[in-house]
Amino acid sequence: MTVRFTSKKPSRRAFLKGTLASTAGVMAGAGAANAAGPDPLITEKQDWAMGTGDGVDETPYGLPIQFEGDVIRRNVEWLTADTISSINFSPIHALDGTITPQGCAFERHHSGAIELRKEDFRLMINGLVDTPLVFTYEDLERFPRVNKTFFLECAANTGMEWAGAQLNGAQFTHGMIHNMEYSGVSLRTLLEEAGVKPEGKWVYVEGADASSNGRSIPIEKALDDCIIAFKANGEALRKEHGYPVRLVVPGWEGNMWVKWVRRIEVKEIAVESREETSKYTDTLEDGTARKWTWVMDAKSVVTSPSPQSPIKHGHGPLVITGLAWSGRGAITRVDVSKDGGKTWETARLANPGQPMALTRFYLDTEWNGEEMYLQSRAMDETGYVQPTKNMLREIRGENSVYHNNCIQTWWVKADGEAENVEVS
Amino acid sequence: MTVRFTSKKPSRRAFLKGTLASTAGVMAGAGAANAAGPDPLITEKQDWAMGTGDGVDETPYGLPIQFEGDVIRRNVEWLTADTISSINFSPIHALDGTITPQGCAFERHHSGAIELRKEDFRLMINGLVDTPLVFTYEDLERFPRVNKTFFLECAANTGMEWAGAQLNGAQFTHGMIHNMEYSGVSLRTLLEEAGVKPEGKWVYVEGADASSNGRSIPIEKALDDCIIAFKANGEALRKEHGYPVRLVVPGWEGNMWVKWVRRIEVKEIAVESREETSKYTDTLEDGTARKWTWVMDAKSVVTSPSPQSPIKHGHGPLVITGLAWSGRGAITRVDVSKDGGKTWETARLANPGQPMALTRFYLDTEWNGEEMYLQSRAMDETGYVQPTKNMLREIRGENSVYHNNCIQTWWVKADGEAENVEVS
Repeated sequence: MTVRFTSKKPSRRAFLKGTLASTAGVMAGAGAANAAGPDPLITEKQDWAMGTGDGVDETPYGLPIQFEGDVIRRNVEWLTADTISSINFSPIHALDGTITPQGCAFERHHSGAIELRKEDFRLMINGLVDTPLVFTYEDLERFPRVNKTFFLECAANTGMEWAGAQLNGAQFTHGMIHNMEYSGVSLRTLLEEAGVKPEGKWVYVEGADASSNGRSIPIEKALDDCIIAFKANGEALRKEHGYPVRLVVPGWEGNMWVKWVRRIEVKEIAVESREETSKYTDTLEDGTARKWTWVMDAKSVVTSPSPQSPIKHGHGPLVITGLAWSGRGAITRVDVSKDGGKTWETARLANPGQPMALTRFYLDTEWNGEEMYLQSRAMDETGYVQPTKNMLREIRGENSVYHNNCIQTWWVKADGEAENVEVS
Repeated sequence: MTVRFTSKKPSRRAFLKGTLASTAGVMAGAGAANAAGPDPLITEKQDWAMGTGDGVDETPYGLPIQFEGDVIRRNVEWLTADTISSINFSPIHALDGTITPQGCAFERHHSGAIELRKEDFRLMINGLVDTPLVFTYEDLERFPRVNKTFFLECAANTGMEWAGAQLNGAQFTHGMIHNMEYSGVSLRTLLEEAGVKPEGKWVYVEGADASSNGRSIPIEKALDDCIIAFKANGEALRKEHGYPVRLVVPGWEGNMWVKWVRRIEVKEIAVESREETSKYTDTLEDGTARKWTWVMDAKSVVTSPSPQSPIKHGHGPLVITGLAWSGRGAITRVDVSKDGGKTWETARLANPGQPMALTRFYLDTEWNGEEMYLQSRAMDETGYVQPTKNMLREIRGENSVYHNNCIQTWWVKADGEAENVEVS
């Protein structure tokens, strides 16, 4: 068997130009010591091929392998006073594709994740309806179901960055997001079952947890694409995502996706609850506030390289990758800049953008150790283009917490390490 | 607040006809005791609304809630001599949508699930290539990536049913399947990097486990849509699914999706290895065997109601649901029969079928306690129609283990319980 580690004829694929030298280079690292010696396939520890592994009785419900123990949700201790009213960020820097497994999907609670049995679950629809109704879990399972993949983004995602580069890592700047395949009943189906009266213009949705997290939603949206969901990625919702039932409000801020949903009241006017007045409004420069800013505008972030995912390999081929999404429809294009927004290259979308779902993008490129100011810029089917932080500040000032969809910058240094920075 | 449990004007949606009486009926069950008494929203135990729940520090990697403790992979003890060479079936009877979470996705090993560190991983491409190459995990991450959702089905799925109705539950008859979003590098990219010589007509793919599970794959398929995958549903492959890297062979039998993939040799002829001669061939009535039966033909199964998912609610609206798939392309239609195949109704596909991926179907119907012989029948974009068991037996006899894609029958009794039966 001949294994060559260095010379090799040029690749036939133009976009792999340069791969060879690099791959050869990387392999030289692995192979150099072995060149005249042992088989390069044999590494120090090969127990796996010498004996047998785990039986199927050991994994009734499987967990990630121990080597991936750092790919977990993380909270930021100083961010909130208490963990029951806090955030656990998705490890987006370490994921690929678009699906977020439930086990590491962002969670946010206002009074902790509660344990609500299906048998104890009730969903009431009342208010301006022909017939107030109370559904058990079993009742819900008897209505026609829908299946759809949507992203959920907290309105506060990237909120710390209004004041400048703060949190060092895509998990913390952009990890209040997840993307799952939901199965459930269209909210429209249930509202039609109760019969919405003509004067019903809003629904007020309430959870069963102590915070109740009540939110008002215009009837048009409630009758459009909202889902009373009981499964995510095929299986039951996790406790921290609202088991047994949560509301899905495609493209709209995560706080409206009421968990452990208990009651939906049809109303003539909005409630103006705590969660939509003291919170989830955007304070402008002059002290007035924007409210009802429900839709999550187009946004993107490079997930790798990034501060938690530095370049560890040598020069040459580099895959730059990230996520893009829009609450107004499908992502149509993502551009990537290496020089802080002076010049842009169009990235490759792994698949055509789907409405209100995460889109994975890749830029297959070369890196020879030059510093980069990496940015990504999303465009959606409405023609909207993700703005810079300064463009947002001009309009909205720096008093906001929510709805920061600005372009993010990672400063990638010559050693491959990356830092969260701001460029002007 | 008025909550009415009985009378209610008819629904405006034709296909919900009959829902009302039933929903009211079900609600009467919950509400009857409360009718003159306490608020129907209040059940015995409401701790969840009285106090706070878990903080975000408790779920760095989350697991299903305790109430879903029965939604797990299961093995069948008498099926194999040892659990290291056995099967753990997906709980498809309890899932919805199409994605299978890794934690409950079917696993099959030939010598147990091994623990292979990324640092120790090597992938060699050798044989009839211009330049034999050895890739580290890090090397693979530098090539352009693809993302795609595919089903994996074991060739032996439903194999026990050749001899008649055997295993009582969709998990056991059809649970050797999963459906995940894969991210990785196209095998074509790596083969082109090595340069396949004109005489190279096959690849022989080998895993790092003791069994090695070597399989021969025609070069056309290897250069078509195969993926060297390192992520499934966004995160690293689980140990039991081949961490850190497995081969994805869209639409083809699961045994070819070599786990812990270690070597790919380009060859002029097939190896005719143990896994493709003594196994994974189909013995016909006359004792001769079909071989190279790689593609998984169109198939479907009703997942609910089914033996493990009986009808527990009263008469009236019933959602019949299941999964359909084809290794030859997209599912275009699924029909459901309640009378063992005498008459058929066309089911609703939750979303348009995707090539070589699971498709969820629903039949929104009425059930008034009559016995049903429930069947589903899939059609794919090639025009192929899923056959009955007897049609398959006529051609293939009853000596086979693999490639049983026959129509499955569940006998649903008046009490809602279901059993695996055979109808002729």
